[in-house]
Amino acid sequence: MTDTPAPFTAADHAARLRRAESAAADAGLDGILVAPGPDLVWLTGYRPVETERLTLLVLRPGEEPVLVVPKLEAPDAARAAPALALRDWTDGQDPYRAAASLLGGTGGTGRYAVSDNAWAMHLLGLQRRLPDTSYVSLTDALPMLRAVKDPVELDRLAAAGAAADAAYEEIRTVRFAGRRETEVAADLAGLLRRFGHSQVDFTIVASGPNGADPHHEAGERTIERGDMVVLDFGGLKDGYGSDTSRTVHVGEPDAEERRVHDIVRAAQEEGFRAVRPGAACQDVDRAARAVIDEAGYGAYFVHRTGHGIGVTTHEPPYMVEGEERPLVPGMCFSVEPGIYLPGRFGVRIEDIVTVTEDGGRRLNTTSRELAIVD
Amino acid sequence: MTDTPAPFTAADHAARLRRAESAAADAGLDGILVAPGPDLVWLTGYRPVETERLTLLVLRPGEEPVLVVPKLEAPDAARAAPALALRDWTDGQDPYRAAASLLGGTGGTGRYAVSDNAWAMHLLGLQRRLPDTSYVSLTDALPMLRAVKDPVELDRLAAAGAAADAAYEEIRTVRFAGRRETEVAADLAGLLRRFGHSQVDFTIVASGPNGADPHHEAGERTIERGDMVVLDFGGLKDGYGSDTSRTVHVGEPDAEERRVHDIVRAAQEEGFRAVRPGAACQDVDRAARAVIDEAGYGAYFVHRTGHGIGVTTHEPPYMVEGEERPLVPGMCFSVEPGIYLPGRFGVRIEDIVTVTEDGGRRLNTTSRELAIVD
Repeated sequence: MTDTPAPFTAADHAARLRRAESAAADAGLDGILVAPGPDLVWLTGYRPVETERLTLLVLRPGEEPVLVVPKLEAPDAARAAPALALRDWTDGQDPYRAAASLLGGTGGTGRYAVSDNAWAMHLLGLQRRLPDTSYVSLTDALPMLRAVKDPVELDRLAAAGAAADAAYEEIRTVRFAGRRETEVAADLAGLLRRFGHSQVDFTIVASGPNGADPHHEAGERTIERGDMVVLDFGGLKDGYGSDTSRTVHVGEPDAEERRVHDIVRAAQEEGFRAVRPGAACQDVDRAARAVIDEAGYGAYFVHRTGHGIGVTTHEPPYMVEGEERPLVPGMCFSVEPGIYLPGRFGVRIEDIVTVTEDGGRRLNTTSRELAIVD
Repeated sequence: MTDTPAPFTAADHAARLRRAESAAADAGLDGILVAPGPDLVWLTGYRPVETERLTLLVLRPGEEPVLVVPKLEAPDAARAAPALALRDWTDGQDPYRAAASLLGGTGGTGRYAVSDNAWAMHLLGLQRRLPDTSYVSLTDALPMLRAVKDPVELDRLAAAGAAADAAYEEIRTVRFAGRRETEVAADLAGLLRRFGHSQVDFTIVASGPNGADPHHEAGERTIERGDMVVLDFGGLKDGYGSDTSRTVHVGEPDAEERRVHDIVRAAQEEGFRAVRPGAACQDVDRAARAVIDEAGYGAYFVHRTGHGIGVTTHEPPYMVEGEERPLVPGMCFSVEPGIYLPGRFGVRIEDIVTVTEDGGRRLNTTSRELAIVD
């Protein structure tokens, strides 16, 4: 159905490793400790599962990156990231000793950023072995490390967005009334896969009163004529994320449903219009929220306006009050205001937006009008 | 295909919460901090995804358990675990403040166990907010908290094992020669699902020289006549894990292949025979390893002999040198020695075993003889 893009090259990963080392040095860190997960995939292409067995990339400015790895996973690591130096350890050995020797040994006093999703047990192992070192989460220390996408990454995100849009165009044509949310959700998942997603992260189908719970996924409720239905779906295509929401109505909406949808659509538009280089992240939130506040529904918009997207479907930058960092060309994030009326219905509209040289560009381009479905 | 067992009850979860509180008190802990994942599922039945938004169950001996939860996930949490007190927080607030107030506030000095897989960023947030508290990983503090299974859990593990065994009986009948490892792996995944697995965690098909890498998964290699093929597969059925390995041969094996397989089979048998209440975990490893050492292949058995299984496919107790804790009736774990001859082939044989009142019982019961496949 879709072409597979060329894989990232050793040069791509080397450039990211350099970018990370340089950012660490600029932030006064002695290094970055990278756990399996999105940071490690982005930096090296290696994608092990995080387990109780320590795998940890140690990045120190000016030093060769070294991957601490369980011996029995070393061959996989060497295949996935042939340029990386490996330091393996064997079951029964203390893996933190192997890592600690890279961090200055027992007397080490450095300050390191550690992947947000590193396991607490591994951090505690390092803290025990190296009591004079200190740690900060990678997102706190270098929140924007992965935030600015290069042109290849942008292409991948645009392709993932286009695939999600194709899934939305198809889902509008299926039957809603009389079917369970889980059935429509399964249709959505199938469509995402059909349009090239290798991983489906969520397929929210929140009908009627379920729509008033912003994180309702899909349940056994049978969708009825007259329901508003929030659709919010995404996953990974060729390693990069999609995430889009549209709210549809089964049959003709009433005046209030139409009004609430119009307010959210206007809020989403204003959030999008606030996207430009140099604006603060919180400006996007404020712009969208102001529309909903002014319409009198402020108490019913209970989440932030957006989150970044890349090798995950949820990452910095966050469009939230208090996030004063500036937007930079190449950043990609959601703009997704909503109104949730408890016990009644909800509306959410979401596009992924990228910051351009002079504004923003939507990576989801399906109609944001209230679609009527059967 | 299979009957769905009754879900665990509120009483089951209440009993586990009491068991955990009592274990914490016995260990001199001020409490347990439970992150989304297996600990939280086991204790409460609630199964959110761990994200940058803090969800944390705070368990303190003698106090009511409280779940700190993002406001927008609170309705899901209340549905999944209606007996739990919730303390929600809203995007933009500091979630660690909400958690810290449960841990004695700014001046708190307690010592807490924290789920192994809690995100480092959340632990760092607590450490920053409560600098005089201390933390230890839950597995270090209370390694055996989930290790002894109750009769309902044992039934689930036995059913998962039986489903994996049914998958093995079927996979022996498929064509191996001339097909890629990934094709056979897809067959295995389909069989696990057909026999009731909701989640497939791994389907290792390691043929010929790939078998010498104990964590090789399945690749593009075409399986050939004359190959040894290690099959190692498992996942979750009704919330509990399966994990079994058999090594098959495509066509007739040669004398050395048969000898190495015999050694591993004898090692697996001796490991199994070492299972009885009061034996140390390391005794199981030693018993299996002794057979391989004596046969002269000790250098080629590069991993521990086993790991526990329950709501995950990898958890304490570990059958490894240095693990001196005793086996207790109701524990469930793998016994899975192997021999890996670099560049040539590998053999691994694995059953899940549970400790009975006077020995061990296998939850995998397919033949451990070297099966010849086509």
